[in-house]
Amino acid sequence: MSAVNRQFRLAARPVGLPKDSDWTLAESHVPEPGPEEVLVRVHYISLDPAMRGWMNEGRSYIPPVAVGDVMRALAAGEVIASEHPSIAVGDHVTGLFGVQEYAAMHGAAVGKVDTELAPLPVYLSALGMPGMTAYFGLLDIGRPSPGETVLVSGAAGAVGSVVGQIAKLKGARAVGIAGGPEKCSYIVDDLGFDAAIDYKSQDVPTGLAEHCPEGIDIYFDNVGGPILDAALAHLARRARVIICGAISQYNQLEAVQGPANYLSVLINHASMTGFVVSDYGDRLAEGVAEMAGWYAAGKVVSREHIVDGIEHFPETLLRLFTGDHDGKLELHVAT
Amino acid sequence: MSAVNRQFRLAARPVGLPKDSDWTLAESHVPEPGPEEVLVRVHYISLDPAMRGWMNEGRSYIPPVAVGDVMRALAAGEVIASEHPSIAVGDHVTGLFGVQEYAAMHGAAVGKVDTELAPLPVYLSALGMPGMTAYFGLLDIGRPSPGETVLVSGAAGAVGSVVGQIAKLKGARAVGIAGGPEKCSYIVDDLGFDAAIDYKSQDVPTGLAEHCPEGIDIYFDNVGGPILDAALAHLARRARVIICGAISQYNQLEAVQGPANYLSVLINHASMTGFVVSDYGDRLAEGVAEMAGWYAAGKVVSREHIVDGIEHFPETLLRLFTGDHDGKLELHVAT
Repeated sequence: MSAVNRQFRLAARPVGLPKDSDWTLAESHVPEPGPEEVLVRVHYISLDPAMRGWMNEGRSYIPPVAVGDVMRALAAGEVIASEHPSIAVGDHVTGLFGVQEYAAMHGAAVGKVDTELAPLPVYLSALGMPGMTAYFGLLDIGRPSPGETVLVSGAAGAVGSVVGQIAKLKGARAVGIAGGPEKCSYIVDDLGFDAAIDYKSQDVPTGLAEHCPEGIDIYFDNVGGPILDAALAHLARRARVIICGAISQYNQLEAVQGPANYLSVLINHASMTGFVVSDYGDRLAEGVAEMAGWYAAGKVVSREHIVDGIEHFPETLLRLFTGDHDGKLELHVAT
Repeated sequence: MSAVNRQFRLAARPVGLPKDSDWTLAESHVPEPGPEEVLVRVHYISLDPAMRGWMNEGRSYIPPVAVGDVMRALAAGEVIASEHPSIAVGDHVTGLFGVQEYAAMHGAAVGKVDTELAPLPVYLSALGMPGMTAYFGLLDIGRPSPGETVLVSGAAGAVGSVVGQIAKLKGARAVGIAGGPEKCSYIVDDLGFDAAIDYKSQDVPTGLAEHCPEGIDIYFDNVGGPILDAALAHLARRARVIICGAISQYNQLEAVQGPANYLSVLINHASMTGFVVSDYGDRLAEGVAEMAGWYAAGKVVSREHIVDGIEHFPETLLRLFTGDHDGKLELHVAT
C-alpha cells in the first residue's frame, strides 16, 4: 500500500470560476480505519455541478466545505481494510469520499454496490446521485403522464440524459436542450429523445415553439438563466417546473439572474418546485432498484466521460461549466 | 331611466402607469336587453390590480381589452329589466359589467347575490373575487396547518387582509407586510394578525427574521419584486409560495424583475405556484358559502374604500398602485 494519500484541499473560496490557486494538492498519510470504520481505495471520483455550491460560504442544504479541508466529492472504490462487521475487504462501495486517493469512513456512511450488475463508474452516474436526481425529480415532482411533453435542459448530461429516458419509459414526449450537434444527435439517436434543441446554434424560443407546439407540461431545469425564461414563456396549463440546478448561474460574480418570466406560473396555474436528491434519502433504495432493472434491461443507457489521474481535478472540474464532456464526468484514480 | 350610459373606453395601451389620455369617457345609449339578457344598473365598480394586465397586448389568462372597448371590470348592481326566466327585476347581481353605468348581459353571465346577508360592496370584496382569491390560493395551494407561519404581502389589501384572517381561522400564525403605520395597526389590532412589517419604514429582511424566526411556511405574494426576494431568503423547509400577483411590477417599463433568490426553492424543497381565481370557477359556490358563514359570524372582516362617481375612475385606479386606499377600492356609481 502506498504510504501517501494525495488529496485536493480547498485553499480559498473561489470568486467566479475556481482557479488553480483555489486548490492545494496535499500529500497526507493513508489513514488507519478506526472502530467501525472502513478504509476505501478510491477508484473513481464524481465531478458534479453541486460541488461549486459547496465551495461557497453561507447557508445551503449542507454546510460549505471549510477552507483547508479536503474537497467534498462523491466517489466509488474498494474496501481495503475494514473494522466494520458488515463490510468486507474487497467490497465495492460509494460515498462522500472526497477528492483523494484513500478515505477512512464509518461503515454506515458507505453504500455497497454490485459490480456484477453494472461497472463501478455507473454507480456515480445512472445508478448514483445523478440518476436518482433524475428519477425522484421527474417522477415525484414532475409526475409525467403518457402524451405529456417533458423538456429537459442539460439533456446530454448525467441528470438530463436520464430524465429524458425515464420520460420516454413513462410514455411522455422528451425534448432536450443541449449544446452542439454531437450532443443533440446523441440524445435523439442513442437515447431516444423525440427532439433536440441546440442552444449554441439555434434560437431556443423558436425551437420550443416547433417542438412543444402544445406547450411544455414538465420542464426539468438544470441550467437556469435565459433557457429557464424561455421555457417559462412556453408553459402549458398546470405545468410543473422542476428546479434541479442552475449551472449557468453558479459562477456568476453578479447577482443570480432571477427568472423574469416567473409570472407565467400565475397565468398558467403552474408551479416551480425545487429539490435536492438528499430530500429522498429514505427512498433511495427504491429508486436504485427500479433504475437497476431498467439499466439491466437496456432501457436506460448510462455514459461516462472518464479522465485519468487525480492530478487533473482542477481543470477537469471546469469542464462541467464549459460543457466540454460527453456523459457523466469522473476522474479515474486507481483500478 | 337616464337615456345616457357613461362608460370608460380604452383609448390607448398604457406605457407604465395609465394616463388620462389612455381613456375616453364616452356616452352611449342605455342598451335594451336581448333574448335571455338582463339590463343591470351598475351600483359599484371594483378596481383591481388585474385590470392593469388586461390593458396590455398579448397572451394571458384572458384576452386583453381591445382598444376602443369598454374597460373590463367586475361590478355589482341591480337588474332593471330582464328577458331571462330566472332573474327578476330588483335582483342584485355581480359580473363583468365593465366601467359603465349600465350593462346588458346574458343571464348566465351574472351571479345573484343576497344583500340581506351582506351589503352589495362586500360582494366585490371578501365575498367576491378578492375573497375567493384569498380562499382558494391559501387553502388549495398553501394548505396551512396549525402552528405554521403564513406571510402575506399587501396585507391590508382586499386579498391580503382575507388571507391573514383565514390563516388565523386555520390555527396558523399570520404575519403581514403593509405600507405605513395605519395599515400595520389595522391588520394587527382589527384583523388579528400576529405581527406586521411596515415595508415603508422597516427593513423587510430584519422584520422577517424577527417575526418568522423558524422560517416562512407559506408566503402569499401579491407584490413581487424585492419583497418576494426577501421572503424567498427566509423560507422554511417545504415552504409553499403562492404567486397571486406582482403589483410592484405591473407598470414596469423595463423587464419584470425575476426573483433572484428563486434557488431557495431548491435548497428548501419548496415550491412557487401561481393561479388566478378563475381556475377555481367550478368551486366558487363552495368558497362563497364558507366565506359567507365566516362573514356572518364576524370571523372575517371586510373593509371597502369607496369613491363616489364614475368620472373619478382614471385617478382612482392609480390609487391601487400607490397604496393610497384603506380596504377594497370601489367606485360608487348609483344607488
